[in-house]
Amino acid sequence: MIHSVSDRERDIINTLDNSVQNSDLVILTGGLGPTDDDITKKALAAYFDSKLVIHQESLDHIRKIFSIMTIEMTKRNIRQAEIPEISEALPNSQGCAPGMLFRKNGKIIISLPGVPVEMKTLMQEQVLPLLFREYALLPGLHKTILTVGLGESVLADKLNSWEKELGNEMKLAYLPGQGILRLRLSVTDPQKKGAGDLLERKVNELTGLIGEYHIYGFDSDLLPAVVGRLLEKNNLTLSVAESCTGGNIARLITGIPGASAYFKGSVTAYANDIKTNILRVSEQDIRLHGAVSKQVVEQMATGIKDRFGSHYSIATSGIAGPEGGSAEKPVGTTWIAIASPDKVISRKFLLGNRRDRNIVRASLYALNMLRNTLISDQQNIK
Amino acid sequence: MIHSVSDRERDIINTLDNSVQNSDLVILTGGLGPTDDDITKKALAAYFDSKLVIHQESLDHIRKIFSIMTIEMTKRNIRQAEIPEISEALPNSQGCAPGMLFRKNGKIIISLPGVPVEMKTLMQEQVLPLLFREYALLPGLHKTILTVGLGESVLADKLNSWEKELGNEMKLAYLPGQGILRLRLSVTDPQKKGAGDLLERKVNELTGLIGEYHIYGFDSDLLPAVVGRLLEKNNLTLSVAESCTGGNIARLITGIPGASAYFKGSVTAYANDIKTNILRVSEQDIRLHGAVSKQVVEQMATGIKDRFGSHYSIATSGIAGPEGGSAEKPVGTTWIAIASPDKVISRKFLLGNRRDRNIVRASLYALNMLRNTLISDQQNIK
Repeated sequence: MIHSVSDRERDIINTLDNSVQNSDLVILTGGLGPTDDDITKKALAAYFDSKLVIHQESLDHIRKIFSIMTIEMTKRNIRQAEIPEISEALPNSQGCAPGMLFRKNGKIIISLPGVPVEMKTLMQEQVLPLLFREYALLPGLHKTILTVGLGESVLADKLNSWEKELGNEMKLAYLPGQGILRLRLSVTDPQKKGAGDLLERKVNELTGLIGEYHIYGFDSDLLPAVVGRLLEKNNLTLSVAESCTGGNIARLITGIPGASAYFKGSVTAYANDIKTNILRVSEQDIRLHGAVSKQVVEQMATGIKDRFGSHYSIATSGIAGPEGGSAEKPVGTTWIAIASPDKVISRKFLLGNRRDRNIVRASLYALNMLRNTLISDQQNIK
Repeated sequence: MIHSVSDRERDIINTLDNSVQNSDLVILTGGLGPTDDDITKKALAAYFDSKLVIHQESLDHIRKIFSIMTIEMTKRNIRQAEIPEISEALPNSQGCAPGMLFRKNGKIIISLPGVPVEMKTLMQEQVLPLLFREYALLPGLHKTILTVGLGESVLADKLNSWEKELGNEMKLAYLPGQGILRLRLSVTDPQKKGAGDLLERKVNELTGLIGEYHIYGFDSDLLPAVVGRLLEKNNLTLSVAESCTGGNIARLITGIPGASAYFKGSVTAYANDIKTNILRVSEQDIRLHGAVSKQVVEQMATGIKDRFGSHYSIATSGIAGPEGGSAEKPVGTTWIAIASPDKVISRKFLLGNRRDRNIVRASLYALNMLRNTLISDQQNIK
């Protein structure tokens, strides 16, 4: 059960007390920041009747963070290293405020910072390992198949009869995101004999049913990292020419540490004169076919590949919206091209009428087209 | 109070029944998708003992969505237009599944899709107006001041004595995000005489204390949209040369509808030969000072401005990490330059050791430097 509590000490203490009475494990998040509206630590100290003391390792950690930043350290930051004396600090590798662990009548109470990346990392690095140890838990047995470019309903119909045959032994969850659909396959009883083999067999069946074109990875794989590995292991380089995606493909690629090993760079050619002057797209083709056309997107792809001297390139040109659509080319019309050392392929997509979603989808579909081109080219070489 | 319930019909019905008994208003989210693991609607129909019927307007809306997409429509999508007969549909402008409104013993029960953008929009467009009407609520009186580039602790110290003088009449909340810190100032009793004037006066005081350099807007303003308006109203154009930010600045700018009116485009110059060949940065300066240097970032800014023929430009060069740092230039060292029609300014930042955060912060700090340059240039002209 989840309670959302306001930043009032009495409310925090009452809710905490209620939760401790009704549950064996209570996790609090938020309210550990340096400002005066953050009072969770004070409330915890009062609830456990334990005074706040400096936790030296946390203080050293905070000093280290500030020594590499330009922001000056204040008394408020030092106070972030204080924890109630009876608590155990949980080191926070992503920020200043440590997590805290309390025990009371055989129950566990954990307080975590609310900043999403700090809370997530503390859960993964500290809390989950601790809970697995304390409660002698077994990890669940599941695998997540990551797909791109498939509609939830179409896929559900395709998998319908297979899914029914899973019976009670396994469960399939559809986890949709923007342009991406994650399929999590879980074994109901991980301790049953052969559970691991069963999961592996079912994952293989599912992969066969969906088709590898749309499956870019498993579990925590990231599409731009998958593409990056395909490039790097063959010493290949990439450049990108973006119109409608506006820099988002370059951002996804450069978000992966080490991308400089294979990514040369990109041009966002928003204005038509950048398409002609920098990418050497034919002015006449823009006039004849429009900037959102097969001709232009293919010339953008070969233009950037030649200018930047890369082995492969991606190009996008589309009408992201909300303005700019026509009867012939409605908002969402998007051309994507991939240039290889010896060919160019391109494809048209109709993505819909939401600008933010069109940019995200076009970017992912482009990376997936490159992924498939790289796999097919590398298979042909062998 | 928030309950998190598994996708089991009995659990949904039990939790719903409990909530309806204890609360006047119950909002459910999620479980309205087209796949077999989405059973919230079925559970609602069972709980209210009401059969599912097609809601014609929702069906027309779904047909329209599919007619502009390439994904084929299936029976599953048609079933998304079904709602329990006794419920009232809440139109979902962002997706297929309508929200649903039920009434029972003077209580209100609302079911919303779980996709974040759909839920948020339904809350804003349908649910909040409905609740304000039903409960004759008055909107709260508050204003959010949006700042960039300020540490939470430093700002809290600066505002400390002013904040104490607010007394019980007002409340200040610190809402930190990546590189951005939102300050929400609320009047405790919005119905008290002069409450609006008090808020306005306090916002002005706060603006004076923080300084306009760091304040990019209020409430729902977006930094790249603020910059866009400053460019557009003066018929000015912008180009961007990115190294460490890897396309993220271009993405932020092009995320704003209508950006093509002032944004010419960008180059992501990840490899040094792109910096020299495309942006005409001096090879010798890269050798002498390194790619992350005042000399190189300023040449990137003038290079892109000249090549792309824009009035203004932004350039970034930094060590995003996790690799590539040295004692002299640790990870997080970032140079940002702004080129105006008649000058170039640049500044060094030490951002820290997290790649994702460095990219986000460098992008926002660069946009804020441009914002201040535009304001100062436009004041000088007058």
